[in-house]
Amino acid sequence: MQHLPSLPDAPLPGNRVQLGRDTKLKLDCGVELGPFPVAYCTYGALNEDRSNAVLVCHALTGDQYVAEEHPITGKPGWWELVVGPGKPLDTNRFFIICSNVLGGCLGTLGPTELNPETGMPYGLSFPVITIGDMVRAQAMLLDHLGIEQLFCVIGGSMGAMQVLEWASRYKDRVFAAIPIAGAARHTAQNIAFHEVGRQAIMADPDWHGGDYVSHGAIPRRGLGVARMTAHITYLSEAALHRKFGRSLQDRDMLSFGFDADFQVESYLRHQGSTFVDRFDANSYLYITRAMDYFDIAAEHGGSLPEAFEGTKSRFCIISFTSDWLFPTSENRAIVHALNAVAANVSFVEIQSDQGHDAFLLDVPELDKVLAGFINGCAERRGLGR
Amino acid sequence: MQHLPSLPDAPLPGNRVQLGRDTKLKLDCGVELGPFPVAYCTYGALNEDRSNAVLVCHALTGDQYVAEEHPITGKPGWWELVVGPGKPLDTNRFFIICSNVLGGCLGTLGPTELNPETGMPYGLSFPVITIGDMVRAQAMLLDHLGIEQLFCVIGGSMGAMQVLEWASRYKDRVFAAIPIAGAARHTAQNIAFHEVGRQAIMADPDWHGGDYVSHGAIPRRGLGVARMTAHITYLSEAALHRKFGRSLQDRDMLSFGFDADFQVESYLRHQGSTFVDRFDANSYLYITRAMDYFDIAAEHGGSLPEAFEGTKSRFCIISFTSDWLFPTSENRAIVHALNAVAANVSFVEIQSDQGHDAFLLDVPELDKVLAGFINGCAERRGLGR
Repeated sequence: MQHLPSLPDAPLPGNRVQLGRDTKLKLDCGVELGPFPVAYCTYGALNEDRSNAVLVCHALTGDQYVAEEHPITGKPGWWELVVGPGKPLDTNRFFIICSNVLGGCLGTLGPTELNPETGMPYGLSFPVITIGDMVRAQAMLLDHLGIEQLFCVIGGSMGAMQVLEWASRYKDRVFAAIPIAGAARHTAQNIAFHEVGRQAIMADPDWHGGDYVSHGAIPRRGLGVARMTAHITYLSEAALHRKFGRSLQDRDMLSFGFDADFQVESYLRHQGSTFVDRFDANSYLYITRAMDYFDIAAEHGGSLPEAFEGTKSRFCIISFTSDWLFPTSENRAIVHALNAVAANVSFVEIQSDQGHDAFLLDVPELDKVLAGFINGCAERRGLGR
Repeated sequence: MQHLPSLPDAPLPGNRVQLGRDTKLKLDCGVELGPFPVAYCTYGALNEDRSNAVLVCHALTGDQYVAEEHPITGKPGWWELVVGPGKPLDTNRFFIICSNVLGGCLGTLGPTELNPETGMPYGLSFPVITIGDMVRAQAMLLDHLGIEQLFCVIGGSMGAMQVLEWASRYKDRVFAAIPIAGAARHTAQNIAFHEVGRQAIMADPDWHGGDYVSHGAIPRRGLGVARMTAHITYLSEAALHRKFGRSLQDRDMLSFGFDADFQVESYLRHQGSTFVDRFDANSYLYITRAMDYFDIAAEHGGSLPEAFEGTKSRFCIISFTSDWLFPTSENRAIVHALNAVAANVSFVEIQSDQGHDAFLLDVPELDKVLAGFINGCAERRGLGR
């Protein structure tokens, strides 16, 4: 069994904590981690009986900056529509936690962190991680914060995978669970799109077998292409059509060249190039791999209901009509499994033409569904109205 | 006005002819071509009154080897299910022609052809071409073959775009038109996927600004990634799921690495790497660009019916239920436009879960629809039953 070397015990900026000092985190691949850093943000205050904590789980390229300015891009937090005073996750009532996932690149241990043995980033010597590993690292963070039970665990896309993993693995620690635009497994098409992105990164000579930092390089072009591909899958054709149609970019006529003639080309190039400034290529490889490996039924003898047997959590499953990456059918499969074990489950398919990204956007019905479910659960949990 | 230099008048192997000796081909971008080579294959025999000719238009990565072994891959012709003795396009009755498109890489003038002025391939000095240019080159080939009117013009995907262009531009030369899995314009999502492919190619340092031949290089990795992305769009999620699901490749357990764990990954890598052996990267750039530029209504003041005003051709429009790249809605828009000008039009949406590629596959209903429509038209045209 491989054992990753410990990181130096230096003071860490912001909310960053070393976990796994005493009990290490045993990854699904067999490697043991500890101590290792986890970076996180919190909003609101923990109440006296520690019953109002909400864990927000971020998506593939998300981070812990849910409701505050992003330190690199300077943009607002990615879920300020949902988290804040008077919002469905009301920071006047709840204590909101979001941690950068294991394998990430914003403070939690991932392939960009320095290996103290070599003084260089881990790169591809970092172990392959799973959604289960991410969730167990989050559980260690909650232990550290003295939070026994979460009032709610919530997230969209890869965040929804973590929510399902939480509800399955820690049945006593989750009062309410809200997986949005998720799936209980990554489909063949999802794996295929991820594989294209990984191949684009690994094809970039600036990737240097994952060792780009020692070469003073960044695989900008490969990571940009990966992001462009993924970005198309996050939007619906209707959303792309409404946003761009066949409109030309800063010109009246076709250029008869390979510049960005169409606005949609220019938009995608921009998405690709700005992404490179805030995200690490190896992290992208590791996190997409974790999503591909996710198949919660497989861990339970192929039975999805088995994964939730005995749950007492309240579930609200949410999907969007135009989401073709994590379609309603995949979300309905979760509902069926929960029904099969007589779980307390609501299911809402929200009409939206914005595609998978709808969970991040201003969709009034999402706001209403979240507020209603969260308020109802809060009352049940004795947190008032 | 730029004028491309003429190619040397050397004897060309197989069916390859120099067109545009007297009257040059004026491209939509303004460049004039001629003489230029067009490579083509034929099957069956032209009848005495030259009324039984069928033009098959190939798709993006297709070629003229419709019903014979491919000279590079050694695989059977790409449409032997449809073209051959006793097939819907019965070579005992019809004279079938298929030419490599302008911009292609199998004998017709394209960026791989040598520029006689430099002795090197044109590369990016090749002019950007359009679907209209491809079709006008085909019309010149028919003139050369002495064929005034086509009994039928047929094709799938980009082939369908050429069919529509033929029916719109040469109203007297098309008796029957069969656009399959096509569209009257490339959508924003389609442009977006093409742009990812182009960016992947151009990001490959072996591309050398399009001048890879002088550098003795081939942008294998970039073209491979482009093909992988495109290939996903040609299949439905259902087809990918049925073919691969989450099955592992030559192993019982996850590898916890970045090798191809899943069969779908291994399949895509194979698709990417074999494609490079039979297709040219610059051709891929030019042909995808031609598809992106396609918008037949735009050439007629924004009115799609206007494009077909006065047509006397018989149309059969065919779409597939699971085709999300060229969906039924886009095909229906063509039908509506044809109805608006009182054209003779049938429309069939075929139930298939195989996605866009269904037009290339063994779909019995497609076979039946084609045979029925073609036989009916043949009788009308006096070609017997």
